[in-house]
Amino acid sequence: MTPAPNSEYTVYRGVEGAVKKSAAQLPALGPKDILVKITHSGLCGTDLAFVPYGIALGHEGVGIVEAVGSEVTQFKVGERAGGGYHRNSCGHCSYCLTGQDIWCYERSVYGEKDYHNGTFGEYYIGVETYLHKIPEGLASEHAAPLQCAGATVYNAISSVVKPGERVGILGIGGLGHLAIQFARKLGTEVVVFSTSKNKEQEAKDFGATEFYLLDELEKLKAPVNTLVVAGNTYPDWKKFLVKDVLARAGNIIPLAAPNGDLSLPAFQMFFDGYNVRSSLVASRAKHDEMLEFAAVQGVKPWVEKFDLTEDGLLEAITKMKGNKMRYRGVLVAKDV
Amino acid sequence: MTPAPNSEYTVYRGVEGAVKKSAAQLPALGPKDILVKITHSGLCGTDLAFVPYGIALGHEGVGIVEAVGSEVTQFKVGERAGGGYHRNSCGHCSYCLTGQDIWCYERSVYGEKDYHNGTFGEYYIGVETYLHKIPEGLASEHAAPLQCAGATVYNAISSVVKPGERVGILGIGGLGHLAIQFARKLGTEVVVFSTSKNKEQEAKDFGATEFYLLDELEKLKAPVNTLVVAGNTYPDWKKFLVKDVLARAGNIIPLAAPNGDLSLPAFQMFFDGYNVRSSLVASRAKHDEMLEFAAVQGVKPWVEKFDLTEDGLLEAITKMKGNKMRYRGVLVAKDV
Repeated sequence: MTPAPNSEYTVYRGVEGAVKKSAAQLPALGPKDILVKITHSGLCGTDLAFVPYGIALGHEGVGIVEAVGSEVTQFKVGERAGGGYHRNSCGHCSYCLTGQDIWCYERSVYGEKDYHNGTFGEYYIGVETYLHKIPEGLASEHAAPLQCAGATVYNAISSVVKPGERVGILGIGGLGHLAIQFARKLGTEVVVFSTSKNKEQEAKDFGATEFYLLDELEKLKAPVNTLVVAGNTYPDWKKFLVKDVLARAGNIIPLAAPNGDLSLPAFQMFFDGYNVRSSLVASRAKHDEMLEFAAVQGVKPWVEKFDLTEDGLLEAITKMKGNKMRYRGVLVAKDV
Repeated sequence: MTPAPNSEYTVYRGVEGAVKKSAAQLPALGPKDILVKITHSGLCGTDLAFVPYGIALGHEGVGIVEAVGSEVTQFKVGERAGGGYHRNSCGHCSYCLTGQDIWCYERSVYGEKDYHNGTFGEYYIGVETYLHKIPEGLASEHAAPLQCAGATVYNAISSVVKPGERVGILGIGGLGHLAIQFARKLGTEVVVFSTSKNKEQEAKDFGATEFYLLDELEKLKAPVNTLVVAGNTYPDWKKFLVKDVLARAGNIIPLAAPNGDLSLPAFQMFFDGYNVRSSLVASRAKHDEMLEFAAVQGVKPWVEKFDLTEDGLLEAITKMKGNKMRYRGVLVAKDV
């Protein structure tokens, strides 16, 4: 039964460093809004960064449309919808008009502007054109982590690499295990760099064609054209930015922003022609393309499921902080 | 009269820190080689960097073809030819096959492999397909600095910017004064950033549409989409990498490699989506395109002329080191 406007529902926020259940009041739906009853939500490092700010957490949500505003045309009650990071844009700037709406200066994204609405909760309210249909073949528990992690990885990689190129992936975690899959299915040779020999078999199961430890880069049979930095620390750039590891005119794609500076060796950058290509989640067209690609090509996040409750969130966050999550935590609503 | 093989001719090399006249022996021309009698050669910062190594200096040469090898088809005796930076590539790697021959791993460029052949000298010997025809409308004294400075600027800018975008140029020197011209004639709005109000009129004469001092960035009427760093020091990145100065998803193009690291603020790079686009002189197709573009669109280096002699080189180098060159020094052979 659809709750009435002003009725209370549950969200989860940071309170004194812990994630706590909290009551929110359901707003009246705007004409273009849809009300999504959350069934699944991925847990992302960005959520932890926002715990101190007390905002409603969660931005990798999937659920069932429970009500629609008066002018909604893209969703029907009962359909699945996903989203939560990118929440609005102006619709008329040069970014919005060219499929780069994630960069719109008037945008609203998770952590900017919309503080009382998150996908860790009973409901998520979104503008219909900033939510995404979930293709039929995609399970909701897999679709959830794709809403941020999947979009981030696919947007960054698919915008830069070409089939047949060699793509290096550094780090096999929530982003890295998806990067391996997407890169391989985009038709590239996927070279995984890791600190741990234990990850070799899994990396290959995900689609890696080669695997090297960080201290055996000299064994590389050919340099990679693109280096995707999928972990949350930067590598020793001087080891990677040499032409036997990263090919001349190659691309560096950091998928996160560690604290501090991105300090690259200027001489190597210039004389071997390296480029840094930045990327933030995905604009809407790429997001839709990613979901369709994942469904058709069989890209599947490896998830661990937890209850979408205070206890479940604590368990999931503890595992993530201990670097023990394989590879993406998904919170599942009780009645699913 | 064409000199015989093994006859002596003059080149200039670094000897104990100074550029000195030196004798070289003319090799027999290979089947694809051409012998160019140098009439003009630009002076570039890279030449100064190679003085300590004692190689034959100069890599922005223009002259008249004086002899051709037995299989040369692209040049005739008496035609003008230019070049000197990029000297050879393998011809069959993926870079060579896709118009990116400057990145070929087997390439020869100025300062790599070919140490006794430079454009500060009576003659320059080059493979015919690594020399470039000079379009009719282009004076040799203007064509010379285009062989490296012009190629560097045009390749970097034309590969990244789109008409109608706003391009920021930081620094008005040998590269910057060409960057302003090329960017404007590529159909962009050209925003010049400088430390000196004295340069405003000249910047506008070159084609700048706006001019700002470095301490008045808050006056910018709109952010630039691309920032070309045309000087040989990096700016204070924290001042430039903000969305009111460099637009989200904007590009940074350093045209040189100062000593030390390229240290960029990671958070701003990531969340505003900035890219670093590297570029090294130009591959051959772009080099030809640049010369044609310069001739047709009227891009003209502002040059100061010096004698191509020990004294002339000393005078030019002294002026360049003192940051007094406006804006590119050109050495002219005595009998031109």
